[in-house]
Amino acid sequence: MTALIAAAVQIACTNATEANLDRLEARIGEAASRGAGLVVLQELFEAPYFCQDMDERWFAAARPFDDHAGIARFRALAKRLGVVLPYSWYERDGDRLFNSLAMIDADGRVVGRYRKSHIPDSHGYYEKYYFSPGDTGFMVHETAVGRVGAGICWDQWFPEAARAMVLMGADVLVYPTAIGSEPSTPGWDSRDHWQRVMQGHAGANLTPVIAANRIGVEKGRAGEMTFYGSSFIADFTGRKVAEAGRVDEEVIVANLDLDAMREARRSWGVFRDRRPELYGALTGPKPRALDCPNVSNPAR
Amino acid sequence: MTALIAAAVQIACTNATEANLDRLEARIGEAASRGAGLVVLQELFEAPYFCQDMDERWFAAARPFDDHAGIARFRALAKRLGVVLPYSWYERDGDRLFNSLAMIDADGRVVGRYRKSHIPDSHGYYEKYYFSPGDTGFMVHETAVGRVGAGICWDQWFPEAARAMVLMGADVLVYPTAIGSEPSTPGWDSRDHWQRVMQGHAGANLTPVIAANRIGVEKGRAGEMTFYGSSFIADFTGRKVAEAGRVDEEVIVANLDLDAMREARRSWGVFRDRRPELYGALTGPKPRALDCPNVSNPAR
Repeated sequence: MTALIAAAVQIACTNATEANLDRLEARIGEAASRGAGLVVLQELFEAPYFCQDMDERWFAAARPFDDHAGIARFRALAKRLGVVLPYSWYERDGDRLFNSLAMIDADGRVVGRYRKSHIPDSHGYYEKYYFSPGDTGFMVHETAVGRVGAGICWDQWFPEAARAMVLMGADVLVYPTAIGSEPSTPGWDSRDHWQRVMQGHAGANLTPVIAANRIGVEKGRAGEMTFYGSSFIADFTGRKVAEAGRVDEEVIVANLDLDAMREARRSWGVFRDRRPELYGALTGPKPRALDCPNVSNPAR
Repeated sequence: MTALIAAAVQIACTNATEANLDRLEARIGEAASRGAGLVVLQELFEAPYFCQDMDERWFAAARPFDDHAGIARFRALAKRLGVVLPYSWYERDGDRLFNSLAMIDADGRVVGRYRKSHIPDSHGYYEKYYFSPGDTGFMVHETAVGRVGAGICWDQWFPEAARAMVLMGADVLVYPTAIGSEPSTPGWDSRDHWQRVMQGHAGANLTPVIAANRIGVEKGRAGEMTFYGSSFIADFTGRKVAEAGRVDEEVIVANLDLDAMREARRSWGVFRDRRPELYGALTGPKPRALDCPNVSNPAR
């Protein structure tokens, strides 16, 4: 059996970046000791989720890939432990700022750099203020544990992104995440919706999914946000095989059978039966009929 | 509130077509009496699931749209009860045979005819023998209860089909289905996988999904198949709000809030944030890297 032992880590983050990395390092070590070859961390773990407010001071926190102490530190860690370690950070590239991910392979090399394609914008999630939409396109990274497709948070809501990465060869999909309460809708809990959408990606693409999400309560100018953790690992049918709670710092680990996945892809036949010539609506301009923002809808 | 009261019906089918329609008619009446304006029936309910075997005698059972007693009967029924009634049948169009669906509106008119785009082929599901791949493309039907996107069975496994129908304006997605045991893999139960994939379509597209599936044990030449029912209705977050059992003839009904759906589409923002220019992998030729049938994979 070609097994991929995968882990997800969830922690609370503060302004003390080194302390955040220290806590992660301890948990990554725990994951490695439990056999994990791939350890998925949450989104933007170096700091509180600063997108909770619009504050231009955070622009200065963006760091270029080539001059980044945290990436250098975790490259050494990945090599020492022999684990694949996707690293999420706020990237500066000249005057452009991105929400980025460096895929650190088990030998410490960075084998790919992806920039978040889909940028959200809502109360408490002011990401369009901080990040340009990614210019890399979706990426699949060749690593020691297989081909890892990596999206970042909001990307996880888009079936197109998951499908594209699998068509590009992904053996597994990972999603570093920061999601929790909705400041504009205090009673709204998106946790189950969030999980179901990614379970759907796993099942439809016959590909396991690993999502790592932030925990903790973070105070902003307009109030506080509670990040709901609930990091999980789904197998290639979308079944949750490991799941963390909403509150505590945790490591979850699952053993994913990639041979069974390949056999299921062959026998189930969905990739054989696709009809790309019928999928033009997905790549075309936004149709006028859809009842959603910025779309006039004369039919109703 | 703009409510859509939707129902799904599941029955066992025999070679006695009129008796199948009689049972359905009684259940459609029950759904209407419970307020349903849309009643989703299973796939190919006129007969046993003949695709369990390859038998050329069934070719003669295919009927043209314009000369079809069952459609005529259910058009009158739909008008009498004031319900939208998608009708699945084996269609002959000259020398071509399709797995088709006529969307009967609540006034008895047929407002659209769709031909199944994705055709499966596995042990006990020999559909490529019986059906040409549909030539209509995906369709959304303007009906009395809203814009209904209709896929047929295997279509339900393809996120592209669901997304395309929603981009074309669908308020709700319906999937007539015939799925059950796998003759080649007796222990395999795909029920939860099947549900999760469609729950994912609902959640990712912020669109309710209604799936109606066959029940019953049907004997074929090579053995028997057990259809697992489990028809269900998911709300626009993918949550199951109604579900039938595996064995019994049943009607399920749910009240779907289309205003809340539209508000969620606006506030959640996934349609605003799509990046169609990045989705070329979905419409391009099958990439060589994917580890699936008929694809060489020099990278491994």
